[in-house]
Amino acid sequence: MMPQWIIEKKRDGQTLSAEEIRGFVEGYTQGRIPEYQMAAFAMAVFFRGLSPDETAVLTESMMRSGDVLDFSGLPDPKVDKHSTGGIGDKISLILAPLLACCGVVVPMISGRGLGITGGTLDKLESIPGFRTGRSDREFRATLEQCGLAMAGQTERLAPADRKLYALRDVTGTVPSIPLITASILSKKLAEGVDHLVLDVKCGRGAFMKTRADARALAESILLVGRRMGRNVAALITDMNQPLGRSVGNALEVIESVEILCGRGPEDVVELTLALSEELLVMSGRAANGKAARNVLQARLKDGSALKRFRQLIQLQGGNPEVLEDYNLMPCARIQAPLTAPAAGFVAEVHADKIGRACLALGAGRVKTDEAVDPAVGLTGLVKIGERVEKGQLLATLHANDEGRRDEAIALLRDAFVFSAKPLSCPLAVLERIGPEDKGSTWKGGGKQ
Amino acid sequence: MMPQWIIEKKRDGQTLSAEEIRGFVEGYTQGRIPEYQMAAFAMAVFFRGLSPDETAVLTESMMRSGDVLDFSGLPDPKVDKHSTGGIGDKISLILAPLLACCGVVVPMISGRGLGITGGTLDKLESIPGFRTGRSDREFRATLEQCGLAMAGQTERLAPADRKLYALRDVTGTVPSIPLITASILSKKLAEGVDHLVLDVKCGRGAFMKTRADARALAESILLVGRRMGRNVAALITDMNQPLGRSVGNALEVIESVEILCGRGPEDVVELTLALSEELLVMSGRAANGKAARNVLQARLKDGSALKRFRQLIQLQGGNPEVLEDYNLMPCARIQAPLTAPAAGFVAEVHADKIGRACLALGAGRVKTDEAVDPAVGLTGLVKIGERVEKGQLLATLHANDEGRRDEAIALLRDAFVFSAKPLSCPLAVLERIGPEDKGSTWKGGGKQ
Repeated sequence: MMPQWIIEKKRDGQTLSAEEIRGFVEGYTQGRIPEYQMAAFAMAVFFRGLSPDETAVLTESMMRSGDVLDFSGLPDPKVDKHSTGGIGDKISLILAPLLACCGVVVPMISGRGLGITGGTLDKLESIPGFRTGRSDREFRATLEQCGLAMAGQTERLAPADRKLYALRDVTGTVPSIPLITASILSKKLAEGVDHLVLDVKCGRGAFMKTRADARALAESILLVGRRMGRNVAALITDMNQPLGRSVGNALEVIESVEILCGRGPEDVVELTLALSEELLVMSGRAANGKAARNVLQARLKDGSALKRFRQLIQLQGGNPEVLEDYNLMPCARIQAPLTAPAAGFVAEVHADKIGRACLALGAGRVKTDEAVDPAVGLTGLVKIGERVEKGQLLATLHANDEGRRDEAIALLRDAFVFSAKPLSCPLAVLERIGPEDKGSTWKGGGKQ
Repeated sequence: MMPQWIIEKKRDGQTLSAEEIRGFVEGYTQGRIPEYQMAAFAMAVFFRGLSPDETAVLTESMMRSGDVLDFSGLPDPKVDKHSTGGIGDKISLILAPLLACCGVVVPMISGRGLGITGGTLDKLESIPGFRTGRSDREFRATLEQCGLAMAGQTERLAPADRKLYALRDVTGTVPSIPLITASILSKKLAEGVDHLVLDVKCGRGAFMKTRADARALAESILLVGRRMGRNVAALITDMNQPLGRSVGNALEVIESVEILCGRGPEDVVELTLALSEELLVMSGRAANGKAARNVLQARLKDGSALKRFRQLIQLQGGNPEVLEDYNLMPCARIQAPLTAPAAGFVAEVHADKIGRACLALGAGRVKTDEAVDPAVGLTGLVKIGERVEKGQLLATLHANDEGRRDEAIALLRDAFVFSAKPLSCPLAVLERIGPEDKGSTWKGGGKQ
């Protein structure tokens, strides 16, 4: 079978056989099928889609393109969370140590930020000394010692996905639900997890702008995950405004530590609990959502989760003293206030504009090989529904360069919208899509 | 402008600006835009199409990606014909020398065969010594001396088309009317011709299977050609059965010489005259179709066209003695008869199957870098409408290998269909699409 025949078959809307998909992925991974054939294939998939069966075979082929980690030696259930990416999304930093105190194991492989979307690896690396490049042996050792490990995708984990992900980024083939499904699941399942919860972000600052798109992606991942014998649940969550009050690598670590200390913004706490709850129920570590929440809240309150995060930092080479002294974290040279032009209620905080401002400050990257500035970003962001008076702080900018500061301020000009009337803050979780609901504590939202 | 933004814009059905298209083609030609981005772009164009304006800019950018030949020093009008490719299509070998005797200049750049489709260069090269790789200087000298020159596309003629053509072949992006339009016209206009006639083949053995597709391509090329200030006419012609009675490189040269000697199959003569007539009228060398035909027939009859072909062979290094002694042409070792299983009227001669059989014999190539066997093919093919008796010859196979002969015979098993009732041979020309009809002699067909 010539690769172009497979491209043509998909181009013409036909269904590919499992052998055809496997052969194509294998050929691509081994370099026999060149990037240009995969690019044409991906574009054909963008237009024609893939059936759930085709997507499952693609996912499995990509998963099996490299090592599949096996933590079956560890008795506790292996769980993980995946977010489709947003602004101020530091959930992983809190959720992973919190869950590790609740009788599950969290082998978390994360990514770097790109464009306005932040990345867990960049955040972790803002902790002085913290290493995210881990060998399999190191990853396993950390996991055995503290029940969680957080690292980047190694060369040998789903290499087909690594190649295809980079290719899609430069060929206009990112927004394809079957390709996103295969990318997310192939990586996550290669981690050897049994239970997975998805945080599918929706709105201005998210990849999926509409609820319908977010739902379609969630349903695709659930369906394919189930076909591959894994438990998957998904929450569709709001990304019209940023999560929490801080955006930027070190600044988000600090906000996460605040939450692990029992402080910090409510929306981040709520989303962390909602996602964690799903995993404790799916893995059988809690009978229902309410029981899960009780355990999770107790582990936050009694300092276990913070202790576990400290252990992780130590095991991965970081300086755990940052937890007590934030001055040990990278700190920006300039702090600039952004104030309200008039009094009113905050009606909108545009996550995309906040994201672009942080990108301008240097907190993110446009190309995959760029470095990020760990110190810069925003803190003290107002949230929708809050009342501000004229001249009151909307946020504080942290910059290392006057030019970048000014650029960010210009980008933030239209990021805030005010209303004369009071309004309530939108729910963090918009909708739950998952296996049968075993008494989830989430009650809001519903299909729109 | 990042290349992926242009891909995304087209993917989303938006119209590209002239600057965007020019930049993309230029970047691709210079290697700054990699093959994978062009592959994704081409697939997006396959699905979304290009407007006539976009296609004209693409064509011009591809034409200007290399040298544009300028024969304005030669006083006579510069004309050429392009065929979309078929089985047994040796028209160029007859048309070019014939037109060169009628007061026009024919700077013909041709291609090689690929798949079941034959190529003029392969046919010419079956003449011992004939060289199709010509420098610009050689090409111009031949043109000045005999009014025609026949060569392959040099490295410097429309290099963007060379690259893109090879890429489309392996990425499932061949059947896109705007891309075909740009490919054909960029090459032909870089030849410096003023008047162009297209032979758009339609049917089983053609790239365009339906009359609607053939018409759409013809109309696209006419529209874009006109925007670029050139005269273009098109004939839609039948390719359900092969052209003439011989298929194969040397065998088609021999059939062409027969026609230049005033013999040879009527369908080939008719199509050659119909296409040539368009060019003589467009270029003003004949007042109308009838006048054009009279001149063309006279030049065939009085031996001028044959004489011109002899001159071409001499100038391009070939042995002109082949014109008198076909034994000097490559000759296959095995001649095998294919006979009628029963008496009847020939109702169908499947051009695609004939093409595949010739490919099996070695007359064509599957990959661009393969060699062809100049000697093999078929002769004495029956034509639709002819009466055959049981055991009578349907064709003679010329092979150099018993295995290939048997493979070809197997492929020919269903190539012929017979009818008990008499039927007439379909017209070679199905439809004319062109500028105002100045009394074309063609009267058949019409829009279906």
